[in-house]
Amino acid sequence: MATMLAFLATDAAVPAPLLRRLWRGVVEETFNRVTVDGETSTSDTAVLLANGASGAAPLASAGGAPARALRAALLEVAGELARALARDGEGATKLVTVEVRGARSAAEAERAARRVANSLLVKTALYGGDPNWGRILQTIGAGGVRLALPRTEVRLCGVPVFRRGASAGPRARARAGARLAAPEVDIRVALGSGRASARVWTCDLSPAYVRINAEYS
Amino acid sequence: MATMLAFLATDAAVPAPLLRRLWRGVVEETFNRVTVDGETSTSDTAVLLANGASGAAPLASAGGAPARALRAALLEVAGELARALARDGEGATKLVTVEVRGARSAAEAERAARRVANSLLVKTALYGGDPNWGRILQTIGAGGVRLALPRTEVRLCGVPVFRRGASAGPRARARAGARLAAPEVDIRVALGSGRASARVWTCDLSPAYVRINAEYS
Repeated sequence: MATMLAFLATDAAVPAPLLRRLWRGVVEETFNRVTVDGETSTSDTAVLLANGASGAAPLASAGGAPARALRAALLEVAGELARALARDGEGATKLVTVEVRGARSAAEAERAARRVANSLLVKTALYGGDPNWGRILQTIGAGGVRLALPRTEVRLCGVPVFRRGASAGPRARARAGARLAAPEVDIRVALGSGRASARVWTCDLSPAYVRINAEYS
Repeated sequence: MATMLAFLATDAAVPAPLLRRLWRGVVEETFNRVTVDGETSTSDTAVLLANGASGAAPLASAGGAPARALRAALLEVAGELARALARDGEGATKLVTVEVRGARSAAEAERAARRVANSLLVKTALYGGDPNWGRILQTIGAGGVRLALPRTEVRLCGVPVFRRGASAGPRARARAGARLAAPEVDIRVALGSGRASARVWTCDLSPAYVRINAEYS
């Protein structure tokens, strides 16, 4: 999370163990996939209350259609709030989605995505609109994720800027650079080593982040 | 390291295996203890050449007085260069020494020291001269190092600002804050859990870091 208190309520009737299980899974894919500067807070909290006020029948299992519908609704709301948190990071000028595919495990995919999302060099490049794939691959490699470069692809806002072990060239860089001026941008890395994937939301790093946090006390 | 090529030469005569062993140990305590933004480069290189031009007898072992003297000299020169690297980090206004003592293992001490040195919240606080011990303890805890707060002490430039589980009070904060205006500052954390220690050199984070790295390409 990112020093955050989140409270959600539903009028569905859900037995506590089932609610806990549903919510844990949703939090893992949403609030726990937000990072502004890599730090967390002991206050980080996400609470879901279910009061049953709808009068609908209580949820019987995690596998049925009602539970799936509730889960989809929770993912939508919690995902929206999580993205709002990243967008609202101190000094942020852009919401950044980082997706890593083709990892050997979910843990490896998440590690790679978090490395990219928390890299100061990547975050400053995004602030500057610089399609710098070198910084993206460097921080993944430095994070201990084995890179098979001939199978690795980096896309910035849909534009492949690195593929088959090499730069996609200056025209691709220029197209990606233009798209990085948008308020919502994305970095997609395909590692080509496996089938696991992960997504993390973050923001860019601007001089305002430094000022806000330097003048805090 | 921090994207750096270092070349040192000595006129001592040192057999290659002994030179390699000595140098590895020195690099571990100096160049490998520098971080500007937590990133490294595939170009990071530290080379030591020994040409024997002094005509002195070749070093016979790593344990003797000549080897100890050479090691001390290498530590001094490499340490000086390593500190110069941190002081010269992009946009840096201060050289920062982070020392962690009382850890349960050398690895834990180093992890804690690196967390502090690489924390954006700590680095921006240092830029702003803010004696914010909360950010220091938070990032150590978030890094998975178990904190026994009643035994933990944080000193900033020699001033204890946190001890026995609590703030040392506003006067200590004010004194520490005044000392943080210096061009060389230090953070010393005593964990009180064991006997291991580690030291890392870094720099503060200023708006100039963001500008330099945003405008790189």
